[in-house]
Amino acid sequence: MTPCESLLIPDQVPVPLGNYVAVTHAGGLGFVSGQFPMRQGRLAWTGRVGETLSVSQGRQAAVMAALNALGQIRKACAHAWPRVRLLRLDGYVASAPGFTDQAGVLDGASDVLVELLCERGRHARTAFAVPQLPGDSPIELVLTFFVDP
Amino acid sequence: MTPCESLLIPDQVPVPLGNYVAVTHAGGLGFVSGQFPMRQGRLAWTGRVGETLSVSQGRQAAVMAALNALGQIRKACAHAWPRVRLLRLDGYVASAPGFTDQAGVLDGASDVLVELLCERGRHARTAFAVPQLPGDSPIELVLTFFVDP
Amino acid sequence: MTPCESLLIPDQVPVPLGNYVAVTHAGGLGFVSGQFPMRQGRLAWTGRVGETLSVSQGRQAAVMAALNALGQIRKACAHAWPRVRLLRLDGYVASAPGFTDQAGVLDGASDVLVELLCERGRHARTAFAVPQLPGDSPIELVLTFFVDP
Repeated sequence: MTPCESLLIPDQVPVPLGNYVAVTHAGGLGFVSGQFPMRQGRLAWTGRVGETLSVSQGRQAAVMAALNALGQIRKACAHAWPRVRLLRLDGYVASAPGFTDQAGVLDGASDVLVELLCERGRHARTAFAVPQLPGDSPIELVLTFFVDP
Repeated sequence: MTPCESLLIPDQVPVPLGNYVAVTHAGGLGFVSGQFPMRQGRLAWTGRVGETLSVSQGRQAAVMAALNALGQIRKACAHAWPRVRLLRLDGYVASAPGFTDQAGVLDGASDVLVELLCERGRHARTAFAVPQLPGDSPIELVLTFFVDP
Repeated sequence: MTPCESLLIPDQVPVPLGNYVAVTHAGGLGFVSGQFPMRQGRLAWTGRVGETLSVSQGRQAAVMAALNALGQIRKACAHAWPRVRLLRLDGYVASAPGFTDQAGVLDGASDVLVELLCERGRHARTAFAVPQLPGDSPIELVLTFFVDP
């Protein structure tokens, strides 16, 4: 693990909010449950981008959710962590009516994933606007990954 | 198949509503087309949770959609059914403005999946609020699964 | 490549709008970043179906986004193109309040995928209504595919 990874990726990751698990994997492929900008058990931000939150705050929320997602993978795949490669990021942004710069918000997440994992962090991306998210979170991120054999 | 499975998972599953198929699989991985709370060819519920439907009714709709999804897998993978393992559940809840307890609704689906398939039913989960769904359905579920070799 | 494929699938495909890549693949499985109805660097349609766009226009937008998605796969997997098989199409339709015929819009995409790739084009499908999409696009399509060994 690089020093950056140690500093930024949290060891304490959010626990599932229902009867599901944080990460599943099979046949080399892995799925992380939807991650939110949570710290110490609660959402660090709530509300919608373009309304109660600025694009810049939305980006910060996206970074935090991305780090939580990496924390989940590292916790679930401890020994395989150096062989983890990201495949896909789905980003859902709670958006005010008419707000369409979801890409700007999600760049916060994409940048931190590529910065921390370099080539292994490159991912396909989908961006969506939703009117609201569970718990009034401004962002929800879904990561799909691969573990090289 | 256990008695519970026989009783609860429908043999008659909804047919695709367009030029697509209910289930695809390759390399061990399988995808189920979005499933709705349909019985005998029509939606058993319509409308939005937090508006025309209560959380409790939303949960019932989620259970029905989850059973349809399992029915689709069992029909498509008949002989491999005992080796099917769930990986991921994406749950979309048609939600009234301001309604944010999508997790409460989707627990209905998660609970029945784990109850019927036990360890093989444990899944990663993503929860979303959408303003409406095809046909005015209150819920749409998307299952991703793996067939152990 | 068949004559139809040559004519319809674009060689010039949209470039990613942020720090991500158009296609990732590993272990035979591939993911295409969300595709929009873009031509020559800009959206050919904007707005919502059931409001500024008719269902028929939405279908045309869906066809264009589907062809872009195929173009991305063909570009990324050049030599493997004849062994590409589609698995899943996620279709997001920017929808006016109360508009619920997302299936009708997405049939445009499904039809062209099956027409061009025949059996290899058959896919599971999920359909969603969203209030808006990045850049005010009326449609976003996400393709998951498999490359036969």
